[in-house]
Amino acid sequence: MSRKPTLADVASLANVSVATASKALNNTDRVSAATQREVMAAAEQLGYHKASAAHNRHKRSGLIGLITSDYNGRFALPLLTGAENTLGASNHAALLMSSHGRPALEKSHIDRLAAHGVDGLIVVGNTTNSRPPLDPRTTMGLPVIYAYDPSRDPNDCSIICDNIGAGAQAIEYLLSIGRRYIAVIAGPEDFQAAKDRVLGAQRTFILYDFRPVAVLFDAWSEEWGERAAKLLVEQHPHLDAIYCLSDEIARGAARGLASIGKRVPQDVAIIGHDNWFVFASNAHPTLTTFDNNITMLGKTAAKFILDALTGRPHHGLTTIECPMIVRESTEARRHTALESTGRVYERNIQ
Amino acid sequence: MSRKPTLADVASLANVSVATASKALNNTDRVSAATQREVMAAAEQLGYHKASAAHNRHKRSGLIGLITSDYNGRFALPLLTGAENTLGASNHAALLMSSHGRPALEKSHIDRLAAHGVDGLIVVGNTTNSRPPLDPRTTMGLPVIYAYDPSRDPNDCSIICDNIGAGAQAIEYLLSIGRRYIAVIAGPEDFQAAKDRVLGAQRTFILYDFRPVAVLFDAWSEEWGERAAKLLVEQHPHLDAIYCLSDEIARGAARGLASIGKRVPQDVAIIGHDNWFVFASNAHPTLTTFDNNITMLGKTAAKFILDALTGRPHHGLTTIECPMIVRESTEARRHTALESTGRVYERNIQ
Repeated sequence: MSRKPTLADVASLANVSVATASKALNNTDRVSAATQREVMAAAEQLGYHKASAAHNRHKRSGLIGLITSDYNGRFALPLLTGAENTLGASNHAALLMSSHGRPALEKSHIDRLAAHGVDGLIVVGNTTNSRPPLDPRTTMGLPVIYAYDPSRDPNDCSIICDNIGAGAQAIEYLLSIGRRYIAVIAGPEDFQAAKDRVLGAQRTFILYDFRPVAVLFDAWSEEWGERAAKLLVEQHPHLDAIYCLSDEIARGAARGLASIGKRVPQDVAIIGHDNWFVFASNAHPTLTTFDNNITMLGKTAAKFILDALTGRPHHGLTTIECPMIVRESTEARRHTALESTGRVYERNIQ
Repeated sequence: MSRKPTLADVASLANVSVATASKALNNTDRVSAATQREVMAAAEQLGYHKASAAHNRHKRSGLIGLITSDYNGRFALPLLTGAENTLGASNHAALLMSSHGRPALEKSHIDRLAAHGVDGLIVVGNTTNSRPPLDPRTTMGLPVIYAYDPSRDPNDCSIICDNIGAGAQAIEYLLSIGRRYIAVIAGPEDFQAAKDRVLGAQRTFILYDFRPVAVLFDAWSEEWGERAAKLLVEQHPHLDAIYCLSDEIARGAARGLASIGKRVPQDVAIIGHDNWFVFASNAHPTLTTFDNNITMLGKTAAKFILDALTGRPHHGLTTIECPMIVRESTEARRHTALESTGRVYERNIQ
């Protein structure tokens, strides 16, 4: 026959109902292993591919599974929100399950989601570090998007925050407001986010023929920010800016500087990272910081899943820009010059 | 016939397959409205109740749906974690969907979850305020547990944090460490959590024949905590303790007190609320606070769903105790006396 084989052809050859054939091909647990094997054999014999049914929208569940390894929801919920916004527009919805970073639980959750007919998977990390790809025997041909933590397989579709770009922009901005003695206080060296933000910062330093006063790695904590800031001023009295790789570090640095009589931003400008509301907006002064744009990450992941479902899969790494939010911790000088750059200003974020 | 009617009896009477009868009774969208009406009529004629099939574990999906109105995951993720721990032990799993507090989205999500065969629903709030119960036409007989925000229907099963108990314990503890001039800084008056914690505090004041120096309501913010603490010291120089109804308020209060030369806890002891790690443990001094025990709330909700599925539904309001975590902001005095009370001590929380 010249026409493409249909699910009905497969069902007929395997001598089962169309519904049973569908269940077997979708790997649900509602058919016996023997039936599944028969249906799979019939599908192979006819050259029937699930992909050829990809346009049969009515066969879909309209559900996309999100698997998160996030404990406190800081990344998972905004990402779910973004994904839902995009999915809702095409009558899809998202289901979230929590894997606590345990591979066995992740696998078991995906098995359940697949058995209940989700159309695709978004795997959400919380470290920015790359992770092993899912086993194809687990995903069974479902489209998979890796978000926040990329897959180690460069052919997989991964979406991450543009931390290199953020680092580059942070230093460019500090130089543009006249700061010349700039230090970087980073988190632990084994986080990709720390490496990438420092890499971006170094690129701008090199581009403008500057050198950082110091780049210090340790922890994602206020305590470290406070300790590092005091140390920096002690060793480099001319210090006039600190790029902190998290808002917690930035808040600690602000406290450390205040405790030794340094004014922020008049003496030392501070930039944070994450736009974590409780730190960035509640701080004194409020923090200039980068927003990780997690909602946009979720929207993009959902869009890529929908694209894959209509036969246009994405591959490789996609980066999402992190906009800089300028607040009090840097804005005392050259305000007018800044306003002309088109950067995001926000004074009373809710 | 004297035996209980089975699903097969219903299917036979309605002249449909058992699978179709099941789908119709479970309100999936995979049968026509006409078929569903016929099956419903047959079930009614035979006196067949879904509940009588409740022990047929193999008919279940093993999935419990969580609907959250939480935006940032602070409540939803720990609750999901707790629910998953309990559900996992009986081979169930939890799926989370986010309603953003929008009733129409909540209904649409529940329709989807029901269509995909979840066995029960946990509805997670984020305000502590009571909420309208779900429409029975939406839940279609699925067991529902309301968590964090209780249902207004007292017959529904709701699980909340014991905020009255926490308030009572906070004042009892401050009195026990010798504090006599105690103020309360609350959040907005229209949050049930604020009302309940103040109510509990008042009960202890009355019990021991004390009066609070002041009870001030305003916002859940550091800024309010700082402003209120300064105001209190100005008007009540003898003030020696503040019970703050959130960790953000407590952190602001600590800052306000430091700015006017008051030492915490030597001059003024401070208690917070929520055990929000980024505030409570990162603060200087670290905060004595109440843990909302959200994971336990999730575990209990899951247990109650499993109970309902085995024919032992729960009704009414269940409160989960919030343990007090004693840290630096109260512990300078009478340390030995405290240690004998068996309260939770924790110095290096991770």
